[in-house]
Amino acid sequence: MDGRPLGIGLVGVGTVGGTVAHLLETEGRRLSLRAGRPLEVVRGVVRDPSRPRPGGLHGERLTADWRAVVADPRVEVVVELLGGLTPAREVVLAALEAGKDVVTANKALLAEHGTEIFAAARRSGRVVAFEAAVAGGIPIIQALSCGLAANRIEALAAIVNGTCNFILTAMTGRELSYESALRQAQELGYAESDPTLDVDGTDTAHKLALLVQLAFGVTVTTADIPRVGIDRLETLDLKFASELGYAVKLLATARLAGDGVVELGVAPRLVRLGTPLADVQGAYNAIRVVGDVVGDTLFYGLGAGAMPTASSVLGDLVDVACGRAARSFAVLGLWPERAGNQPAVRPGPAFCRYYLRFMILDRPGALGQIAAVLGRHGISIASVIQHDPGETDGPESPVPLILMTHQADSVALRSALAEADRLEVIRRPTVSYAVEE
Amino acid sequence: MDGRPLGIGLVGVGTVGGTVAHLLETEGRRLSLRAGRPLEVVRGVVRDPSRPRPGGLHGERLTADWRAVVADPRVEVVVELLGGLTPAREVVLAALEAGKDVVTANKALLAEHGTEIFAAARRSGRVVAFEAAVAGGIPIIQALSCGLAANRIEALAAIVNGTCNFILTAMTGRELSYESALRQAQELGYAESDPTLDVDGTDTAHKLALLVQLAFGVTVTTADIPRVGIDRLETLDLKFASELGYAVKLLATARLAGDGVVELGVAPRLVRLGTPLADVQGAYNAIRVVGDVVGDTLFYGLGAGAMPTASSVLGDLVDVACGRAARSFAVLGLWPERAGNQPAVRPGPAFCRYYLRFMILDRPGALGQIAAVLGRHGISIASVIQHDPGETDGPESPVPLILMTHQADSVALRSALAEADRLEVIRRPTVSYAVEE
Repeated sequence: MDGRPLGIGLVGVGTVGGTVAHLLETEGRRLSLRAGRPLEVVRGVVRDPSRPRPGGLHGERLTADWRAVVADPRVEVVVELLGGLTPAREVVLAALEAGKDVVTANKALLAEHGTEIFAAARRSGRVVAFEAAVAGGIPIIQALSCGLAANRIEALAAIVNGTCNFILTAMTGRELSYESALRQAQELGYAESDPTLDVDGTDTAHKLALLVQLAFGVTVTTADIPRVGIDRLETLDLKFASELGYAVKLLATARLAGDGVVELGVAPRLVRLGTPLADVQGAYNAIRVVGDVVGDTLFYGLGAGAMPTASSVLGDLVDVACGRAARSFAVLGLWPERAGNQPAVRPGPAFCRYYLRFMILDRPGALGQIAAVLGRHGISIASVIQHDPGETDGPESPVPLILMTHQADSVALRSALAEADRLEVIRRPTVSYAVEE
Repeated sequence: MDGRPLGIGLVGVGTVGGTVAHLLETEGRRLSLRAGRPLEVVRGVVRDPSRPRPGGLHGERLTADWRAVVADPRVEVVVELLGGLTPAREVVLAALEAGKDVVTANKALLAEHGTEIFAAARRSGRVVAFEAAVAGGIPIIQALSCGLAANRIEALAAIVNGTCNFILTAMTGRELSYESALRQAQELGYAESDPTLDVDGTDTAHKLALLVQLAFGVTVTTADIPRVGIDRLETLDLKFASELGYAVKLLATARLAGDGVVELGVAPRLVRLGTPLADVQGAYNAIRVVGDVVGDTLFYGLGAGAMPTASSVLGDLVDVACGRAARSFAVLGLWPERAGNQPAVRPGPAFCRYYLRFMILDRPGALGQIAAVLGRHGISIASVIQHDPGETDGPESPVPLILMTHQADSVALRSALAEADRLEVIRRPTVSYAVEE
């Protein structure tokens, strides 16, 4: 072990950054053994440098000027923990330009500006490490880039938003409404006061953009990924799904289809109970990866929070310090400037089974009419649930009719539902969720 | 990418070796992109070189003489896939001595001779990579050595023998006896004709020895690990466990206790249903790892078979080729020659809850007598199951009484059971399994 410490510039010393600084101080010996050299925070960037931060960051070691830290010759690696696009993009590009390696937890930044950032890194011969950008403490970036390197990835399905999974777990287990479950997630700190980017699937799509870059070598931005959030999910559908033997999870999915196109999507999906993805509870994340050589794998852990995220940031710093990150970066060719022969993408899945909830008037022949419409579009029914409605608000009050289809073409399904929803017995837009196989 | 191929000597071209050779040929382009250079099998070692093997291995490219391959100047890395200790140990030591890197899937070899082999590797400045030695295709060695590098590992619990897990799944799901489930596993190729090393826990102990070297830096051999196999498990206990909300799994466990000692063991354990480990079915493996920074993680996949094992062997070859393996090897310091300040070990868990099955005569006062014995040893009862025996073979035919204890000291428990088993109402040795928390 050579004695020369790796100088770190910490841009952003909030919850995660503070934890990183704290652990670098308290666990310095352990980390330096793994890194082959000491890891040392040279300076931190915060809005208010007068307030001391963990890890002995105060006085001269804090500044509000990120440019000063990026330019500091003692800083060899810049850890960007600001989040968002501005000024994170500028910070990262300036750091690479100045010949520093970059460690970042910023999924939005890479999802939107990956090509520009990786081109800058290659120009200056530096690395960008981003384990913390997807699934908190789970070393999934490493698994996809190194451990499973021998595989052609065929499919992945990921629960990568702890907020959504916490809400879905509460809606399922305690039959809370979406609104109550969200409120509880907010009270417990699992959801932000404005949870939009989590619950509408945007955050999940950012992470999917990073995963498919690694797994399939395709460059997509958030705009390329069709997404449905959990904000319109009704507890009723979780109950029916469970009756059919499924959990409902917000999944990011990608699949290499037979024609070589990668099918992408973010949406609530039905996952068979008793399979590992279905059992991911609360704020946990999991990524299922299917490789042509390894078969089915799953990586599970806490997807957010200061400690799990710090675990990945520190893991990346160890990789940078011992020279492993440079070796990986050189062979991975992520976010290439010339798209070359990268696979095409389309919304997916194009072909799967569906859960459908019709809200119908409880009249003779209603099921027959719906089945006829589906049949005309080539969609066949695998199972049906219709409970005795018991006391309703009257004969004009709609009741749920649940159908599970056999494998169906997604375009045909959409046409069929559009037509069915014009039937007189159907009183609300039909709800549909794909089944993840 | 420099054009110079990495020359591979394949010692053992059986099922796994043949698959490795085949994939190196058919997926050569994909692998060379990830490795930064082509990977090329120079020669293979087999008992009968007259029979051609996959990957174009025939004629001069096959030999029965492993020394010729190890000495071949074109061979830079020796892949040892013989299994067992002899001549695998000689092959690996000779390869390192000759200045070659080594990739091995041989858990028994490292569990028994790790110190000698890693000393040889350090002397010659080469690496030993062994991802395939634990849990088939799951990149758990990499996760422990790199991805979770920032963590002090606090505990691990692993299902790492697919044969045992297949048998337990069949016994649980289809209520087969151990003997029938084993026979089925043999028919389907999940168990060998002599399954002893799998079912008695030895194979699991080999893998635990490797995992604790990485996780805790302790060097143990199989002899240091107390082990109970699955060969005496009765279907009846799986049924009662399930009634109590648990699955029974053959677990390798290790835990860093409060006093700094690592508690080790291999035994059937009760795992709470609905947690990820409990849902590991059939021939799948999973390793739960708890780190002080990352929290709870789980790594899941196929633990055996030619393809998953080949995935790990090829992953290691990619790591060796691109120079990553050398960086990891340099900082990990595995199997050090001087034990130094490595933690002590003891059998574990020392303190946990227990499932107990007494076989008692159905007489008034029987439960009271047993509870009194347990109480005298400081063991308190959390729950009881005793079913109406219905028709028995007569008043002298013993019936099961199931107790779940609160947290209990393992030494006190053993004394209590020895005393209880001398009671006149107890007719068979009492069965006990620890509960994994």
